[in-house]
Amino acid sequence: MDIEAQSKGRGGTRTIDVMSAIRAKVAGRALGAGDRLPSIRSLAATIGVSPSTVVEAYDRLAAEGLIRARRGSGFYVAPTVTPPFALTEVEPRRDRAVDPFWVSRQSLDADAAVPKPGCGWLPPEWMPEAAMRRAIRALARADDSVLTNYGSTSGSLALRRLLLARLAEDAIEASIDQLMLTGSGTQATDLVCRFLLRPGDAVLVDDPCYFNFRALLRAHQVKIIGVPYTPSGPDVARFETILAGERPRLYITNSALHNPTGATLSLQIAHRLLTTAAAHDLTIIEDDIFGDFEPERSPRLAALDGLNRVIHIGSFSKTLSASVRCGYIAARADWIEHLVDLQVATSFGGPSPVATEIIARVLAGGSYRKHMDELRQKLTRARRDVARKLQALGIEPWLMPRGGFFLWCRLAGGQDSTAVARAALEEDVLLAPGNVFSVSQTASRFMRFNVTHMNDPQMWDVLRRVLKAAGQ
Amino acid sequence: MDIEAQSKGRGGTRTIDVMSAIRAKVAGRALGAGDRLPSIRSLAATIGVSPSTVVEAYDRLAAEGLIRARRGSGFYVAPTVTPPFALTEVEPRRDRAVDPFWVSRQSLDADAAVPKPGCGWLPPEWMPEAAMRRAIRALARADDSVLTNYGSTSGSLALRRLLLARLAEDAIEASIDQLMLTGSGTQATDLVCRFLLRPGDAVLVDDPCYFNFRALLRAHQVKIIGVPYTPSGPDVARFETILAGERPRLYITNSALHNPTGATLSLQIAHRLLTTAAAHDLTIIEDDIFGDFEPERSPRLAALDGLNRVIHIGSFSKTLSASVRCGYIAARADWIEHLVDLQVATSFGGPSPVATEIIARVLAGGSYRKHMDELRQKLTRARRDVARKLQALGIEPWLMPRGGFFLWCRLAGGQDSTAVARAALEEDVLLAPGNVFSVSQTASRFMRFNVTHMNDPQMWDVLRRVLKAAGQ
Repeated sequence: MDIEAQSKGRGGTRTIDVMSAIRAKVAGRALGAGDRLPSIRSLAATIGVSPSTVVEAYDRLAAEGLIRARRGSGFYVAPTVTPPFALTEVEPRRDRAVDPFWVSRQSLDADAAVPKPGCGWLPPEWMPEAAMRRAIRALARADDSVLTNYGSTSGSLALRRLLLARLAEDAIEASIDQLMLTGSGTQATDLVCRFLLRPGDAVLVDDPCYFNFRALLRAHQVKIIGVPYTPSGPDVARFETILAGERPRLYITNSALHNPTGATLSLQIAHRLLTTAAAHDLTIIEDDIFGDFEPERSPRLAALDGLNRVIHIGSFSKTLSASVRCGYIAARADWIEHLVDLQVATSFGGPSPVATEIIARVLAGGSYRKHMDELRQKLTRARRDVARKLQALGIEPWLMPRGGFFLWCRLAGGQDSTAVARAALEEDVLLAPGNVFSVSQTASRFMRFNVTHMNDPQMWDVLRRVLKAAGQ
Repeated sequence: MDIEAQSKGRGGTRTIDVMSAIRAKVAGRALGAGDRLPSIRSLAATIGVSPSTVVEAYDRLAAEGLIRARRGSGFYVAPTVTPPFALTEVEPRRDRAVDPFWVSRQSLDADAAVPKPGCGWLPPEWMPEAAMRRAIRALARADDSVLTNYGSTSGSLALRRLLLARLAEDAIEASIDQLMLTGSGTQATDLVCRFLLRPGDAVLVDDPCYFNFRALLRAHQVKIIGVPYTPSGPDVARFETILAGERPRLYITNSALHNPTGATLSLQIAHRLLTTAAAHDLTIIEDDIFGDFEPERSPRLAALDGLNRVIHIGSFSKTLSASVRCGYIAARADWIEHLVDLQVATSFGGPSPVATEIIARVLAGGSYRKHMDELRQKLTRARRDVARKLQALGIEPWLMPRGGFFLWCRLAGGQDSTAVARAALEEDVLLAPGNVFSVSQTASRFMRFNVTHMNDPQMWDVLRRVLKAAGQ
């Protein structure tokens, strides 16, 4: 554990020696649970170290949980903690239902060594690590208040200014009071849903769509309706019929590099969607989380609409860091005002100032554009190479996306992708079966592949084997 | 701005010179909105610098928003951004209603220079700044995956282990699968509310209680019922009557150092609460955010109940950092399983691994206990000194708390505390009037003071003046 290494770095070897001596006594049962440890003064005198060394050693052992301080009465050996507690943590539950939560929980909790063609993010080595470390070192020298205070309710002004400039590149002209920062992109979507939806409302998503939209909407207890997705956006005729018939309150979509298909909304469909939405007073969440992966900018609903009925959402989890959590919402200023209140009530304040400081530094440093240029080139090659290899296994991309890291594919052998994913997980490979993305459950022959997590030859062996077994 | 200083630190003066030259041209209208900038190659040749210097300068100016990159076609001057946008940001809105959101929004958005006796946190100089900086420097050397990956769904195992040891010090024996990390203490409470409550449910809080419980419950559209709070806990007779009559689903409280009163739950009342709760199948959220400020540990509901119907919640915002956001929930393992799903759906994963790494390092470093010991001593003195000064103004503490930084006081001159707070805000002093804490709106003569934000003599002048004016 890194924290252990840190302890050794400070405080000197004497502290470590005292800690080892106590640990040995506990391990050898010379000291049992509940026993009082020698007083600081007496132990220091006995073994010939300074009292502060003993204090340091006791404090660290207490932080580890081996001993406990009782205020005013010294230190005692803690009750024994049974180690098997941690087992369920390391092994993700394999017996869970393959529902919209399945991919997220399996992929987030999987061991780092497990190949994850089913996951929705880039491997660490594809991320701008050097810029991140530089930003964190600078953070260590920031003002006290950045390190310890709550942030403002709308989030860092510096980062919001940088974001306005970036939105303007997509022709989304917003003012500073139309922009707020949130704890993550998902939290941004959730906040808007809390603001707009009541249990029982109808909400429209693409079919297929990002599986976590389904999980999120389930948490809001709304009626989820799917509209079939085509290579240039949702099926407009069906969209119009659904709006007229079901009167959904909200539509959630990705315009640029749609998840899971990698498709891009055409300008013509964007226009028709907005016209129909206006006729039925529909609000639209445009989740732009993959926008920066586009080689050339495609039209954004928020740009056409002028942030009137479109709420534009994004984050830095895919391009910069998913560990430093921060999302944003661009919307009508009066809605932002309400959303800020809602964020105060439910999170107390905006995102971590430590997080926004790191992100603002990386963005302001100017290396972000170069990083994204290189990333787009690498991804073009990776998509092409992986598509070729998949085709050799009878797995056909539904379309070749213009950018991003997903390939939405049909299993040409007629296999059921849920069965394939379950079998692959038995062999420690995480896949994303089609139906977790599908409201109508009509994607059982499909699978989403993340081309950046497909370098491991053993993973390909597993894939070949489970496909063959499922095809028989 | 710090980010500016960082830019100067890297890349050299030539980059800065190029940036200044472009800025001057834009300011002097030699380059207008939409004009194309010289190509990188030609500008480099003209002014005799390397192309990479020009690239660096353009990238930084683009990050600032002064110019924009169009992929494949160079850089252009961005449309002029009107500066007054930021004004509403710097000035918190003074005309807002004094409701449960009032103190949070005013205090979170106030300028650092504004004295804030009404706020709910410690000033930066009372926080363990050196330990924080040490932890952040260590973070800059952490594994790639810590810096860029999503975390596990329950949050850092290392931090949860440290937390189990700390909970055990309060006699709360939990296993690792009974503990999850969240984005903040407020998010922990919100998550539990989402899990347990439906619109229209009745929920019980103390009267007075932490104002944000009221804001949070309003967001959940539940019926909020208040139970009068006594110096040793809620009024038990009223508690029993309310449970029998209104059948609330949930009770939210602080056992140790109740906010705003600073009172502590007695063992006897704790026992009676739990007995009554069991008879009416009531769930209790015990928010322990001020627990570490106690000089001696008082009984916790979670310890008596064994995490059966009590859900124990906490965070590090008051003792370590409110900027590095992280809270936790200890509860029944089957509830934690559901809460983790809910957190995945609504936030995608647990809290920031960057945040949990920083907190775990500070806790494991062992200096936390010493920091808290010193803090408790400083606070004892501050409470006594401020109480004396307040009494001289006819402001009487309702009780002298055993710990913490709040004094819940009665304005003996009969002033209305909302009017006093409004008048003080006009003079740039933020106060917390009683009724924001009161469901029954019966605390108009009370005010909560944060003793750590009351060193400024001018603040005392303002307080004296507005009290006098309101008393006339």
